[in-house]
Amino acid sequence: MDVAAYMVELGQQARAAARDVARSSTAVRNQALLATADLLDDSREELASANHKDLENGRANGLEEAMLDRLELTPARIDTMIEGLRQVASLPDPVGEITGMTYRPSGIQVGKMRVPLGVIGIIYESRPNVTVEAASLCLKSGNATILRGGSEAIHSNQAIAACLARGLVSAGLPETAVQVVSTTDRAAVGELITMPEYVDVIVPRGGKGLIERISRDARVPVIKHLDGVCHVYIDSHADPEKALKVAVNAKTQRYGTCNTMETLLVDEEIAADILPLLAQQFAEKGVELRGCDRTRQVLEGIDQATEQDWQAEYLAPILAVRVVEGLDGAIDHIARYSSQHTESIITENYTRARRFLTEVDSSSVMVNASTRFADGFEYGLGAEIGISTDKLHARGPVGLEGLTSQKYVVFGDGHIRT
Amino acid sequence: MDVAAYMVELGQQARAAARDVARSSTAVRNQALLATADLLDDSREELASANHKDLENGRANGLEEAMLDRLELTPARIDTMIEGLRQVASLPDPVGEITGMTYRPSGIQVGKMRVPLGVIGIIYESRPNVTVEAASLCLKSGNATILRGGSEAIHSNQAIAACLARGLVSAGLPETAVQVVSTTDRAAVGELITMPEYVDVIVPRGGKGLIERISRDARVPVIKHLDGVCHVYIDSHADPEKALKVAVNAKTQRYGTCNTMETLLVDEEIAADILPLLAQQFAEKGVELRGCDRTRQVLEGIDQATEQDWQAEYLAPILAVRVVEGLDGAIDHIARYSSQHTESIITENYTRARRFLTEVDSSSVMVNASTRFADGFEYGLGAEIGISTDKLHARGPVGLEGLTSQKYVVFGDGHIRT
Repeated sequence: MDVAAYMVELGQQARAAARDVARSSTAVRNQALLATADLLDDSREELASANHKDLENGRANGLEEAMLDRLELTPARIDTMIEGLRQVASLPDPVGEITGMTYRPSGIQVGKMRVPLGVIGIIYESRPNVTVEAASLCLKSGNATILRGGSEAIHSNQAIAACLARGLVSAGLPETAVQVVSTTDRAAVGELITMPEYVDVIVPRGGKGLIERISRDARVPVIKHLDGVCHVYIDSHADPEKALKVAVNAKTQRYGTCNTMETLLVDEEIAADILPLLAQQFAEKGVELRGCDRTRQVLEGIDQATEQDWQAEYLAPILAVRVVEGLDGAIDHIARYSSQHTESIITENYTRARRFLTEVDSSSVMVNASTRFADGFEYGLGAEIGISTDKLHARGPVGLEGLTSQKYVVFGDGHIRT
Repeated sequence: MDVAAYMVELGQQARAAARDVARSSTAVRNQALLATADLLDDSREELASANHKDLENGRANGLEEAMLDRLELTPARIDTMIEGLRQVASLPDPVGEITGMTYRPSGIQVGKMRVPLGVIGIIYESRPNVTVEAASLCLKSGNATILRGGSEAIHSNQAIAACLARGLVSAGLPETAVQVVSTTDRAAVGELITMPEYVDVIVPRGGKGLIERISRDARVPVIKHLDGVCHVYIDSHADPEKALKVAVNAKTQRYGTCNTMETLLVDEEIAADILPLLAQQFAEKGVELRGCDRTRQVLEGIDQATEQDWQAEYLAPILAVRVVEGLDGAIDHIARYSSQHTESIITENYTRARRFLTEVDSSSVMVNASTRFADGFEYGLGAEIGISTDKLHARGPVGLEGLTSQKYVVFGDGHIRT
């Protein structure tokens, strides 16, 4: 198989389909989403049997247990996919909104219209449910999509793709509006991320290795975040009760998520008072602490934090703790080590809260709230394709709006420039 | 000189200065702009003598007359730079605006704050006045800037840079907030566009060759447009008077600008009526027409338009003319040949105007208005650093807002996620 030629064909089909999707009505796109939900519901047997093949192959190829778990399409996961499609159908359509229409001195009327991006490439790893999630958000926002899932999920993804294709056609949209790459050849990824003429943006979903590779090699813009090295800073003017509650929640509510706190910063003025209380609660939750010298003066017996610890995204019950010289010390530490994902200050002091909000340059900055809130659903976006720590285009949780662009629209009445 | 080490030093200084600029008040940034305006006014002799050196060198190196003209800092151009600084100072500050603050069911309050991008790299050719224009827009929007002008303008740019540095320092800002690259070694550009750790975005200003080279080699996002192949489509339901007025203005008001019409599309239903009227007006203005077969059936004696003509950005008194099969024919032609800069439909028909607005995927789409309006000043942005035909981040004329990003801000009161 000529992978390059195959990918160009997908690209051309997607580019053509994107025009049809972009001008389709909200009702038509919703109809395609709801039809796909029904088709998935009617195709549970086909989905299970395709998934069974992937699981068998995975076991034969020695895939580890965690990977097999992610690969499995349980009935509950199929329910979730179906529910997700219906939820996305019920969200407001971002496309076509016109804002800021004003008259200019020349007499023309100028505003901005929200428009789809065009063709979105999604590259992901083992979970087949991402196929439905990503495709539904891209379709709802008026885009065509090319999806490249993990090779271990190829049969499951193809079975899901068949439902999507039938759903699209039943609503009068081209089936090429959502295409799942049918080859497991890794060269397909290389082609997908270097076709700016056919693909407008790439959204990778997966581990840091995958995302780094894609960002390095792409010739197409990438919406991504690499790391979530999130900080909570407990200021000397913090309410200790709120500080304990938020710090413990930010670390322990879930360990494996990108918005989990990985480093706790404590103002030197209250370190001796609050660190023992924090240590007790973290000990109860089984969280290992690693501290700077000054932390270890208060909390004897914990391990020394090294340079690596300040940079670490543990995704595990481990927490780096550092005593800092007030707000400036906290902001300096964050400027140096943060991955610009999410940081929170705990304080009752108005001026310090305001400075933290202004001076910390992360995609989410919080006051007296757990970093775990950094999430598309919690922010009211209705859904989330990912979180961006880049500054251009989308930043923070990316929902439907992040999958769109804007264009200027101008109304005249024969106006000319003089 | 070790160019790589020198550029890293500039990058590190810019990154550090960006923090200071980002947290500086509106008043301080305006003060720096106004002080620079006064300093330029006081330094007319130094500017003239530095510019004289560049002009002498240029003549000695055989620079062509048009280039020497662009290079020259006449008293009027110095006036314009000074006036520009004062205008930018008077514009509203985009930084810090918080929008969309709403309470979520969890009790947290979520909104978005507009923030500077960080460090902006500007690469431009001969005109030294770009140094002031670009630096002032970047500074106003809270960013640090590294500017790399053409080597032929090095003395003029250094003289301007000295005024900027003194203006910054007089307002209490670091002089490294605006840095003009002092080496003419071309390797400096290569370094500047491949330092994502120090530079957040590149804005190239110059010819297509320069911009293509930068886009191809950059490892940093680039805000750019390559071409302005702009179209006017005269629909069969057009008011002929408006059609003539707009088409002539779009082509002839200025020939060398990116928003000038390069191809005129005419609905077949009115081609026989309107083409002779158009041809007469264009002949009076000295515009050469090149037409498709059907155009040449009406306008005998004009040259045949080739595939190259549909792709051409003439920037000259030449116009390609094509007769198309109604709105669909026009939209198809535009989808194939447009550079996605600016397109305009002339029609009195509501449904066709609406379809053109929705289905044409360009950074500006107009109804009954001249493409020449696609401009930051005309759109009310106050100023313009360039026009973007990309879909991500800024699209269309880019003013101060296009030089900023947003971050999510979250207010809680000890809120945790459950």
